[in-house]
Amino acid sequence: MRILIVNVNTTEAITQAIARQAQAVAAPGTEIVGLTPYFGTDSVEGNFESYLAAIAVMDRVLAYDQPYDAVIQAGYGEHGREGLQELLDVPVVDITDAGASAAMFLGHAYSVVTSLDRTVPLIEDRLKLSGLFARCASVRASGLGVLELESQPLRAVEAIVQQAEQAVREDKAEVICLGCGGMAGLDDQIRQRTGVPVVDGVTAAVKVAESLVQLGLSTSKVRTYATPRTKKIVGWPMQLGR
Amino acid sequence: MRILIVNVNTTEAITQAIARQAQAVAAPGTEIVGLTPYFGTDSVEGNFESYLAAIAVMDRVLAYDQPYDAVIQAGYGEHGREGLQELLDVPVVDITDAGASAAMFLGHAYSVVTSLDRTVPLIEDRLKLSGLFARCASVRASGLGVLELESQPLRAVEAIVQQAEQAVREDKAEVICLGCGGMAGLDDQIRQRTGVPVVDGVTAAVKVAESLVQLGLSTSKVRTYATPRTKKIVGWPMQLGR
Amino acid sequence: MRILIVNVNTTEAITQAIARQAQAVAAPGTEIVGLTPYFGTDSVEGNFESYLAAIAVMDRVLAYDQPYDAVIQAGYGEHGREGLQELLDVPVVDITDAGASAAMFLGHAYSVVTSLDRTVPLIEDRLKLSGLFARCASVRASGLGVLELESQPLRAVEAIVQQAEQAVREDKAEVICLGCGGMAGLDDQIRQRTGVPVVDGVTAAVKVAESLVQLGLSTSKVRTYATPRTKKIVGWPMQLGR
Amino acid sequence: MRILIVNVNTTEAITQAIARQAQAVAAPGTEIVGLTPYFGTDSVEGNFESYLAAIAVMDRVLAYDQPYDAVIQAGYGEHGREGLQELLDVPVVDITDAGASAAMFLGHAYSVVTSLDRTVPLIEDRLKLSGLFARCASVRASGLGVLELESQPLRAVEAIVQQAEQAVREDKAEVICLGCGGMAGLDDQIRQRTGVPVVDGVTAAVKVAESLVQLGLSTSKVRTYATPRTKKIVGWPMQLGR
Amino acid sequence: MRILIVNVNTTEAITQAIARQAQAVAAPGTEIVGLTPYFGTDSVEGNFESYLAAIAVMDRVLAYDQPYDAVIQAGYGEHGREGLQELLDVPVVDITDAGASAAMFLGHAYSVVTSLDRTVPLIEDRLKLSGLFARCASVRASGLGVLELESQPLRAVEAIVQQAEQAVREDKAEVICLGCGGMAGLDDQIRQRTGVPVVDGVTAAVKVAESLVQLGLSTSKVRTYATPRTKKIVGWPMQLGR
Amino acid sequence: MRILIVNVNTTEAITQAIARQAQAVAAPGTEIVGLTPYFGTDSVEGNFESYLAAIAVMDRVLAYDQPYDAVIQAGYGEHGREGLQELLDVPVVDITDAGASAAMFLGHAYSVVTSLDRTVPLIEDRLKLSGLFARCASVRASGLGVLELESQPLRAVEAIVQQAEQAVREDKAEVICLGCGGMAGLDDQIRQRTGVPVVDGVTAAVKVAESLVQLGLSTSKVRTYATPRTKKIVGWPMQLGR
Repeated sequence: MRILIVNVNTTEAITQAIARQAQAVAAPGTEIVGLTPYFGTDSVEGNFESYLAAIAVMDRVLAYDQPYDAVIQAGYGEHGREGLQELLDVPVVDITDAGASAAMFLGHAYSVVTSLDRTVPLIEDRLKLSGLFARCASVRASGLGVLELESQPLRAVEAIVQQAEQAVREDKAEVICLGCGGMAGLDDQIRQRTGVPVVDGVTAAVKVAESLVQLGLSTSKVRTYATPRTKKIVGWPMQLGR
Repeated sequence: MRILIVNVNTTEAITQAIARQAQAVAAPGTEIVGLTPYFGTDSVEGNFESYLAAIAVMDRVLAYDQPYDAVIQAGYGEHGREGLQELLDVPVVDITDAGASAAMFLGHAYSVVTSLDRTVPLIEDRLKLSGLFARCASVRASGLGVLELESQPLRAVEAIVQQAEQAVREDKAEVICLGCGGMAGLDDQIRQRTGVPVVDGVTAAVKVAESLVQLGLSTSKVRTYATPRTKKIVGWPMQLGR
Repeated sequence: MRILIVNVNTTEAITQAIARQAQAVAAPGTEIVGLTPYFGTDSVEGNFESYLAAIAVMDRVLAYDQPYDAVIQAGYGEHGREGLQELLDVPVVDITDAGASAAMFLGHAYSVVTSLDRTVPLIEDRLKLSGLFARCASVRASGLGVLELESQPLRAVEAIVQQAEQAVREDKAEVICLGCGGMAGLDDQIRQRTGVPVVDGVTAAVKVAESLVQLGLSTSKVRTYATPRTKKIVGWPMQLGR
Repeated sequence: MRILIVNVNTTEAITQAIARQAQAVAAPGTEIVGLTPYFGTDSVEGNFESYLAAIAVMDRVLAYDQPYDAVIQAGYGEHGREGLQELLDVPVVDITDAGASAAMFLGHAYSVVTSLDRTVPLIEDRLKLSGLFARCASVRASGLGVLELESQPLRAVEAIVQQAEQAVREDKAEVICLGCGGMAGLDDQIRQRTGVPVVDGVTAAVKVAESLVQLGLSTSKVRTYATPRTKKIVGWPMQLGR
Repeated sequence: MRILIVNVNTTEAITQAIARQAQAVAAPGTEIVGLTPYFGTDSVEGNFESYLAAIAVMDRVLAYDQPYDAVIQAGYGEHGREGLQELLDVPVVDITDAGASAAMFLGHAYSVVTSLDRTVPLIEDRLKLSGLFARCASVRASGLGVLELESQPLRAVEAIVQQAEQAVREDKAEVICLGCGGMAGLDDQIRQRTGVPVVDGVTAAVKVAESLVQLGLSTSKVRTYATPRTKKIVGWPMQLGR
Repeated sequence: MRILIVNVNTTEAITQAIARQAQAVAAPGTEIVGLTPYFGTDSVEGNFESYLAAIAVMDRVLAYDQPYDAVIQAGYGEHGREGLQELLDVPVVDITDAGASAAMFLGHAYSVVTSLDRTVPLIEDRLKLSGLFARCASVRASGLGVLELESQPLRAVEAIVQQAEQAVREDKAEVICLGCGGMAGLDDQIRQRTGVPVVDGVTAAVKVAESLVQLGLSTSKVRTYATPRTKKIVGWPMQLGR
């Protein structure tokens, strides 16, 4: 089984970290392929960048010319998953949804700890549309940008732990979701510090993707995610000649 | 006052129809400028196309090099409004929101009649995120595509009237919102046939945009719609050299 | 175009302040007529007074014998708008709804700052019924009564600014709605102090009313707001001989 | 114990029917006093009439100069209960709330059958504000006005039974609430025809009122229903010299 | 009229305290019979114990061989009420529902003060399923276990008063519900300390049960609470030979 | 890895069918152990039976004396999962939740098709508590009891397909969840007939359980699902001497 995991930003190092994280939990026989968009920003922290990433992710996946069994969109709270679901016949899993979904099997309420405060409403909105918000205790921001999480891991752990502890104590969260692709690998440290299960969306998404493939399930094509009607795309230079 | 009204598809005729419709209700002294995206599809009927349109609309607005006071995104239920709000300092009005907002001043519940069934969940989701769904009685599809609405106006009116009548009778709608930019101008006919107020999102949006400008109000920049952090956009050929 | 703006209390000075505020933003050619109810209390701060005001507003509007194009009910969170909508053929705009509706075009969440704590549930309930509560971050009370806002403007600005700042910082509001007719004119000062857009319901309502008139839209008469059945009103001395 | 039960319309025959119905289920020692408002309409079927009734009910209760232990407002889905709660120290029970509350002890979902379709949104809104709507399967209208229910009991039973049966079969109601004060006494017949419990709001309200009095409970005065501030009511000829 | 009131734990002293509390408010002619389950735990503080109590309560009621008119389940936020409703033809009243229902007649919002923090989500969930959560301001835990409430009444009052005061001040509760069968009798003290009405679920349930019996109302048998199909229960030694 | 899958009824043939179904999708190295409760009813179709099953499932799992890594409760919409989560340190997965969770990755809305109409509210309530109801289009009943599904497979397929088709056409479901443990194995036939993905809760639960184990995640013990306090269970003959 081959699973594509697509980063939402153009930072190759994050793609590699995500892919490693994914491969580490993959079943024997599952090949993880990390993809970096051909265009976009080196971190995604807001709506404009997220919309651009949505298209960049679709563009990158369409440009991949080998067979694959599922696609993971590895950005937390980003736009675009619905578009991929229309374009592809294989299952599409967003790490936001996979993380929340796993968390709900583990506790009565979960909180998300993400990077910047400005992305909190975006994450909340995505969880609402995904129908996974009813048991969300809170979405909290560490105040560190995506790249700072990468470059300053110690400070990142501290900032995230602090928010996670407040989520547990004040918001009554029983599980913490790491709300950022760039947080891959921090879950063990944070679990030890907070005493509650910590869900990493990337690894959760790998298991969801594998599960759907193994069960022979894929996106329903009867309505919302039906294949787009055949149309000419005008003036769009992307995904050509690749 | 100059208001940009941006079509979401690449069909120039629709842009012109929308702009005419907008100009017809504009206050004296308001100049309406219709913009057609440089890229995208000739109609937008689903998530992939809508995400592409989101970026195309932002690209087109950024390429406009004259001063302007407000921007209207003239696609019903489409993605992208939040990105424009981040990028611009002037008010941004989505016709979906403007239509629903006006409808709520007119009746206890409203219904939307749109083009294809596949876009219904998209519209419902956008209205939910906009916080304008609580009094939405239903979103109904006429079954005609965006371009068929343009090319077959008689058939379009019949199909829309039929859905509107069902919305009033069965779903208890008291107001009908025309759920498609391409329906501009059909409101009078449909009002006569159904006996309830019919809101056209385009004209409603013009009045909202004018109102916000006159009141000196624009997008809040403290959190969700703060200006994007300064970043290099990699590999993105759009909005260059225009 | 003539728009009636009806105060909910019997304090003539407040009526005049509201009318001035309204006229200041009205379009050329729009005449604002301020009306004071013939009966009621000199400020409205609770359910009993609000119910009395509801009837007093209807009574006052019915007693007005000149033609007019729209009516604005200028009380924040008060009862009665639905009754006016039944009685009149022209559009009726409540400043509560107009303020919230405008705020939702400006930010992801808004808060209301009102006078006394006891009116907070009343305002929340009115916003819920109007279907405009989903993006309301909070309703906060300055602790000052309606007439104190009038008589002690400096203290009022301080108290309101303090609540507005807490709304932005703690409740994550991105826009502030002034939740009291008597606050007319304070918006500029508060905007400068808080850094977020401040919506005054009175001015917002003027633009909504003008917009609906210009678009030829008025209250739907098919169900909730149908004209009352013809009945004799027994024992009611109001609105007679005026 | 003396309980005032106040009709919302001015039809004395309905007041008497309600009072008889109430007395029939009252505990030994409970005296029921039926009150008819001094002003208003002979039936209440919409918002204007309901707002007028709200004031008329408060006026009538304030004019009653004997001691009493509780007040029942006997109009289904009408405005005003919150005002009475402010004005009085004794418990106030609305038959809408009492009926829904009883119904929720009897089945998983209940439906209301009322008089005219135009009052359905009013009833739904009142139930929403009362926090009793979550298990409401539907509010259905028999299509008969309040006075027709009185004057044509056979036709009324048929029309109500038909809606009740549809509520059970289609909306999955397990209990029916009679949604109109004027339906008092029809419950037995309808129960026999539909096979589900039928709750009459009037009798339910008597038991709630008695219960609250016996438990020594009354309206909380700390916030929403605090006694109105002392103010002069200007120009209001009601409740004077009675 | 005979009403069974069933404790959820096996502590006979609590059963007796509850029964006394119930008898004290019962109408003349109402006989209260307190029942203690034959099996279970001496206090119920969590899901496992609550599920066990659900069955133990049903078992104990089925073993009671005298006629009775209604059953009260005297555990706050516990499982099982729906099962009793299926098994019995007489009304079944849960003290959680009875308390919340009474509280909603008294104030705009209510809070529950219960024993241990771990039971808070259980209570919230039960209130949600009962459709009585919309006006719940908060559920707060005193931190004392059920038996500590019994054995240390002074400390219990302090802990409960403290939470009640916070509920009123911070959560804007206007009424307090005592969220534990074992709190029976503390209501007067707490009312004096907090100044808001305090509802004891046990006494509220007695009045609801009496009311339903007097009104001739009982559980609807058309769907959710239909009598179980006739089936052999295998291997279940309970409720045999009693 | 060893996963216990516990039937909720006492019909051994259903246990075996479920276990076979589970084993068929289990990863290499996963051992599925099917368990039948020691007591209860041969099918579970309502609240009383479901509460009894809740205890029977806990009893059966506690009596199992070999090590295991996860537990699946294989009853659709049944009570008890929360109790197991308290009692165990390994992950507990309910097939209701697993099915809904998988369905939400596949389409915008899902419907459940279950056995008897009387269990519909039970399933809806369980999905609401699990926070997985927001995208549930409907829960529909085939009208066949659990054992009839077993004994009359052809008729069962017809009845289920008919409801599934209505769910897709009328309720706008894009995915169907089989709402009964006894439906195991029907998914392929129904998928072919309806054209939408069909999720079997049993197989979905196996993959969730495996995934959680592989990710090293288990139930949070900080609040709702904390291990029960140490207490003596009185008078309970179950789970002794096994």
